[in-house]
Amino acid sequence: MGEFDLIDRFFKTRFALKRDDLPLGIGDDCALMTLSPGHQLAVSSDVMVEGTHFFSDVDPQKLGHKCLAVNLSDLAACGAKPRAFTLSLTLPSLQEAWLEAFSAGLHALSKLHGCALIGGDTTRGPLNIGITVFGEVPKGQELLRSGAQAGDDLYVSGTLGDARWALLCLEGKSTVQGARLQNIRTRLEVPTPRLELGLALRGIASAAIDLSDGLLGDLGHVLKASQKGAQLSVPEMMKSALVSKDLSSLPKAQALTLMLEGGDDYELLFTACPSKALAVQAIAQRLNLPLTAIGRVTDNAGIKLMGADHFLDDKALKNLASFEHF
Amino acid sequence: MGEFDLIDRFFKTRFALKRDDLPLGIGDDCALMTLSPGHQLAVSSDVMVEGTHFFSDVDPQKLGHKCLAVNLSDLAACGAKPRAFTLSLTLPSLQEAWLEAFSAGLHALSKLHGCALIGGDTTRGPLNIGITVFGEVPKGQELLRSGAQAGDDLYVSGTLGDARWALLCLEGKSTVQGARLQNIRTRLEVPTPRLELGLALRGIASAAIDLSDGLLGDLGHVLKASQKGAQLSVPEMMKSALVSKDLSSLPKAQALTLMLEGGDDYELLFTACPSKALAVQAIAQRLNLPLTAIGRVTDNAGIKLMGADHFLDDKALKNLASFEHF
Repeated sequence: MGEFDLIDRFFKTRFALKRDDLPLGIGDDCALMTLSPGHQLAVSSDVMVEGTHFFSDVDPQKLGHKCLAVNLSDLAACGAKPRAFTLSLTLPSLQEAWLEAFSAGLHALSKLHGCALIGGDTTRGPLNIGITVFGEVPKGQELLRSGAQAGDDLYVSGTLGDARWALLCLEGKSTVQGARLQNIRTRLEVPTPRLELGLALRGIASAAIDLSDGLLGDLGHVLKASQKGAQLSVPEMMKSALVSKDLSSLPKAQALTLMLEGGDDYELLFTACPSKALAVQAIAQRLNLPLTAIGRVTDNAGIKLMGADHFLDDKALKNLASFEHF
Repeated sequence: MGEFDLIDRFFKTRFALKRDDLPLGIGDDCALMTLSPGHQLAVSSDVMVEGTHFFSDVDPQKLGHKCLAVNLSDLAACGAKPRAFTLSLTLPSLQEAWLEAFSAGLHALSKLHGCALIGGDTTRGPLNIGITVFGEVPKGQELLRSGAQAGDDLYVSGTLGDARWALLCLEGKSTVQGARLQNIRTRLEVPTPRLELGLALRGIASAAIDLSDGLLGDLGHVLKASQKGAQLSVPEMMKSALVSKDLSSLPKAQALTLMLEGGDDYELLFTACPSKALAVQAIAQRLNLPLTAIGRVTDNAGIKLMGADHFLDDKALKNLASFEHF
């Protein structure tokens, strides 16, 4: 099976759809897309590489999901609505069963969010999956990293740390009992992009980012872009919905470290003026998704972890120290 | 030097520019771009992989040029004007000299065509360079592969076969005398995307494609999309401007084979109604770029190489046979 047959079978045919806003899809030199009046294009690119971002034996259907999910998560963080994506797929060989499963996982998430595959490239080489995703957001309504104001509340959606715990278990560096492994593996391998939340936060959040690198790292990006600092209330975080039932089975020091440093959560971190607190809680209820206040934006640079010494000893705190300044 | 320092130094700083149509560039979850009124977005993605698309010891400055050039070539084939691109760069290690040169080559072409770097991803892994390029074209003026009509003239810009000859020389499968190697290597390693030609062909060409896979292969794509066939006049091609001064030093059979099968030319192949012949020649003069008529679109499927037997023996013709049907 050659490149063009492959594209036809697993991508062009499966992903075929007719949409007025997409006059030209897979199969020409370019794809064409229109934007809704008053909207701007939001673009993000993310690559996943075998050995760096996933294990060689990962379920290809889950991999197909995750590759698109991490890109959609960037649209969510921008408050953009998904429209389409391109796929650049570098494959060491053409394994039909692998491609069938990968394409199925990709397609299911694509369909769920109306995010159409409109083009890309397939080539031979070490496994590398690049996606560029296109969304749209009304002019002036985009969520940026740079908008945090001193005094704003800091919020995080969902739960934190589960994905990193799963990774440690798969690497043999941690263990987990019973059904918990399945739960946390799902958080790692089948992340949920918080697209509805991103749309709901237009006009509410002052800044937003998706949590791919870990809470402290990504909070650092927001603070750097906004030229602000933050105080986190660790005791409140530890008794909040941020700690999943699974993670709560761990010693508190371990759970906290996973929550602060773990990556791959694909939750949204956002800031909002305290006057928006009720609006934020209304969104949480409507979406049935916990939105936990974890602290506050400050004028002083750096991240202060208030009360962290109740959970972490000096050595563990020192290991976190690299995140206290940027 | 970490990922973020690398992005800052070789990409964010060097490519920084302020443009009203690009409200948000590198450094947030998404980049933002507006479209001109009445225009649609044209998108194309192309990947280049070490060992598949380029040699490990290729000049990184030329590689930076070529990675963007092959993407711009797709915009040209669509009649789109370049606007911006994202870069997904997978690197085995951070070699500053390599990155400096790669970024310089990429930046020079980017600047030449006003095609801004607005985002991307850098990650660790086997060398893989993915670019997604964004252009815009007025609604209804896009050039497609599917518009060829029986009776249309077939045209090719520039010269054909030089790049493939250079590749064969670099692989030790052919030899070349003196300064010619430099000429044909430039055609292989520093291709010129025919963007001005693409814009000029709006309203003139009935179909277009860029020549990346080779004339017969890419003509096949146009004919398949248009559900047509073609007759090429080989004797006229052989005495035309399509044969570079360098290629004309080769035996005619070898030159013709390179012209028909060679890839990486990044010229435009297009079709136009005979009533547009004067307009096409006016474009050629204005752009100082040969536009050579090579044959005609027909209703009968397949590509007929008229007069090829004057140049190729039966065996060589048979080797081309796979292109006679699609």
